[in-house]
Amino acid sequence: MERIYIKDLHEYIGKEVTIAGWVDVRRDHGKLIFIDLRDRTGIVQMVVLPNHKEAQESAKEVRGEWVVEVKGIVNKRPEKMVNSELPTGDIEIEVTGVSVLSRAAELPFDKDAELNLDTHFDNLPLTLRTDKHKAIFKVQSEIVKAFRVFLQKEEFTEIQVPKIIGEDAEGGATVFELEYFGHKAYLAQSPQFYKQIMVGVLERVFTTTTVYRAEKHSTTRHLNEYTSLDLEFGFIKDHTDIIKLEIMLMKYILGHLKEVCTKEFELLGATIPEISNEIPTMKLKEAQEVIKKEYGEDCVGESDLEPQHERWLCEYAQKEYNSEFIFITHYPTAKRPFYTYEDEEDLGFTKSFDLLFRGIEITTGGQRIHDYDTLFANIKKWGFDPEKFAFYLQAFKYGMPPEGGLGMGLERLTARLLGLENIKEATLFPRDMNRIDTLLSRPE
Amino acid sequence: MERIYIKDLHEYIGKEVTIAGWVDVRRDHGKLIFIDLRDRTGIVQMVVLPNHKEAQESAKEVRGEWVVEVKGIVNKRPEKMVNSELPTGDIEIEVTGVSVLSRAAELPFDKDAELNLDTHFDNLPLTLRTDKHKAIFKVQSEIVKAFRVFLQKEEFTEIQVPKIIGEDAEGGATVFELEYFGHKAYLAQSPQFYKQIMVGVLERVFTTTTVYRAEKHSTTRHLNEYTSLDLEFGFIKDHTDIIKLEIMLMKYILGHLKEVCTKEFELLGATIPEISNEIPTMKLKEAQEVIKKEYGEDCVGESDLEPQHERWLCEYAQKEYNSEFIFITHYPTAKRPFYTYEDEEDLGFTKSFDLLFRGIEITTGGQRIHDYDTLFANIKKWGFDPEKFAFYLQAFKYGMPPEGGLGMGLERLTARLLGLENIKEATLFPRDMNRIDTLLSRPE
Repeated sequence: MERIYIKDLHEYIGKEVTIAGWVDVRRDHGKLIFIDLRDRTGIVQMVVLPNHKEAQESAKEVRGEWVVEVKGIVNKRPEKMVNSELPTGDIEIEVTGVSVLSRAAELPFDKDAELNLDTHFDNLPLTLRTDKHKAIFKVQSEIVKAFRVFLQKEEFTEIQVPKIIGEDAEGGATVFELEYFGHKAYLAQSPQFYKQIMVGVLERVFTTTTVYRAEKHSTTRHLNEYTSLDLEFGFIKDHTDIIKLEIMLMKYILGHLKEVCTKEFELLGATIPEISNEIPTMKLKEAQEVIKKEYGEDCVGESDLEPQHERWLCEYAQKEYNSEFIFITHYPTAKRPFYTYEDEEDLGFTKSFDLLFRGIEITTGGQRIHDYDTLFANIKKWGFDPEKFAFYLQAFKYGMPPEGGLGMGLERLTARLLGLENIKEATLFPRDMNRIDTLLSRPE
Repeated sequence: MERIYIKDLHEYIGKEVTIAGWVDVRRDHGKLIFIDLRDRTGIVQMVVLPNHKEAQESAKEVRGEWVVEVKGIVNKRPEKMVNSELPTGDIEIEVTGVSVLSRAAELPFDKDAELNLDTHFDNLPLTLRTDKHKAIFKVQSEIVKAFRVFLQKEEFTEIQVPKIIGEDAEGGATVFELEYFGHKAYLAQSPQFYKQIMVGVLERVFTTTTVYRAEKHSTTRHLNEYTSLDLEFGFIKDHTDIIKLEIMLMKYILGHLKEVCTKEFELLGATIPEISNEIPTMKLKEAQEVIKKEYGEDCVGESDLEPQHERWLCEYAQKEYNSEFIFITHYPTAKRPFYTYEDEEDLGFTKSFDLLFRGIEITTGGQRIHDYDTLFANIKKWGFDPEKFAFYLQAFKYGMPPEGGLGMGLERLTARLLGLENIKEATLFPRDMNRIDTLLSRPE
């Protein structure tokens, strides 16, 4: 008999069905055994009556997380037994047969227990099974989907970019080093160069890719391996075209989440933000003036925002503009990568931007230098060897339109949308200094 | 004035438009200058007449691959000048103004020259701009899209999996080693363990992920870094459920390509294969008997197929079953990973399969062992330390349904569909023993 999903059981009232899933809870009342069965679509209460001898025997044996296939009759519950909190609260399965597909060891803790994060991560194959964590990663999958669907509608082409790179282009100590057939290679910090090259080929491209930061910090907002949602496109006027596209993109993503994930947001006690076409936008120096005036801290002239500054600016945007989003533009050239476009009308500052949301930067983007000579000169000015950038530079040597793009950390966006305190909770299998699945021993 | 794409120019006949793109060809006839302009939607002929002095001056200066924005009037061509080979062959732009967005250096070779592969790879930012290569990666992006859309319709959830792993699970010499905060780490050869773990959470999952093989071969069918299309799902009867799903998946992908990529297949001289619900399926030993009988080579009892065997079997499937696809099942346990499910009715052989297409394996899949004790025993039998698999094993310790899945190399599928001889041509930025963008010098 074909397996029926729990969410569809209402179509089978009075009929015998086969369902399958995990034993969520089992309550043995002696003559009656109640089992809550969970599949990927929901949870349903089943009752095993004493007249079904074999089913009773199996039911006595099963425990939490056992996987079972169950035959049973879908009954409507009497009015007073209806549980209105549950989509299946008005039905019950009268079990006629149980077959065990897989046993489970005794659980190390109650499945829905509040665990500290380390215990959670130590036991992910089990702890990810809770409604809370399933909801997080359902939302995350829908964010990625909406990102792609929107960009495909805007005629962007998806590209696959390499992660193994030959040069540590940014010249920092923050890349992972790799042994590559007798050579040193590195893990890419971003798909930047490749997406720019591909603007020269396809004009409008995007990618969802894994990126790496070998940074030795252990914070609630950083990961050593994460998913970057990246886009890049040509024939722009300046960075404001990218900002406009991002607003449309965010509207699309949030609209999609409203359509398919309200249940998950509710479960997680989170709200889907409103977003308007008029997201407040200010230059870094204006933002610093706001901070000085409104919050009394003088950071005017500093080259970047501190975490506290980002929180204040989000608070301010909420208060003054009723917006959970705020764009900050014109970071100084010295604080942005060598390929960032300098504003001819605001020298020393770039046509770049960050998008802040709920207290933190979730996007970095901007216009890039598309002129070969300027780019070449900048590489030298930054102290790099242009020879090492020869491959990338070809894209500009042979004609590149004015272009730009942005990158958005998927886990950070997920965490902010869902109000998760630690970004690692928005990562299926987070890597950090101390952990690759299991805790790493201290280095010898 | 808003930029109009070349594909839409027919809507503007008699009107002035702004278009922008790359100079594909420029022909200077003295008084008349012809420029073929290329954007991501097509190519159009423009003519600069002597009465437009400034435009003429600019037009005299521009060369191949310069990026220009052009104002001009869309004119219908006289009947006898129509070029029926080109979608825009019946129109011509009478240029009224040219502004140069970006210059290009003199090209090192004619853009459409037939290049040897090394020259092609040395100059990818330029050589990817040909129609041929744009077509390849357009098709590739549509394969990935169709893969995801189909699985989403089948209620699979997309997951993001890590590439940095702590243990070289398969115990081979074919993994890249990484320096990870004073520890050794490795680049994953597949998302296998993570997608299996996630079946325990979400039942049906897929991922498009980058995988790594540190294999020292330089063939036309292998890459050291490639994109794997992976899926895994629970509550299966056996491997035949996976085969059934894959047939539906391939039908969907090929149907989608027929809808959106016929032009690209035509350009590349390739045909989209027909696929039926009845793909021939045979056990490895049956396939070996076929080879012996039909092609006279006795490989009966060997544990795997050689490349020539795969080519013969595809030829045979075409001849006998009119199918470009053939499934081979039941590879011996010794040739498949430790987690592969042994067929109780054919001991020593597994419920695994390969899908062969146009002479080569494009998919490997199968049912996995879901029973904890069996899996644990197998790990020991394979000579591995179960302690090192403790994280993965939790998924099975706490209840896993019968499950399985498959992995498909995106580049290999693209290459086979398009009849590309070398898989590297189906890879935007291929990595091999000798190359990361530029050729690697010989190891010191």
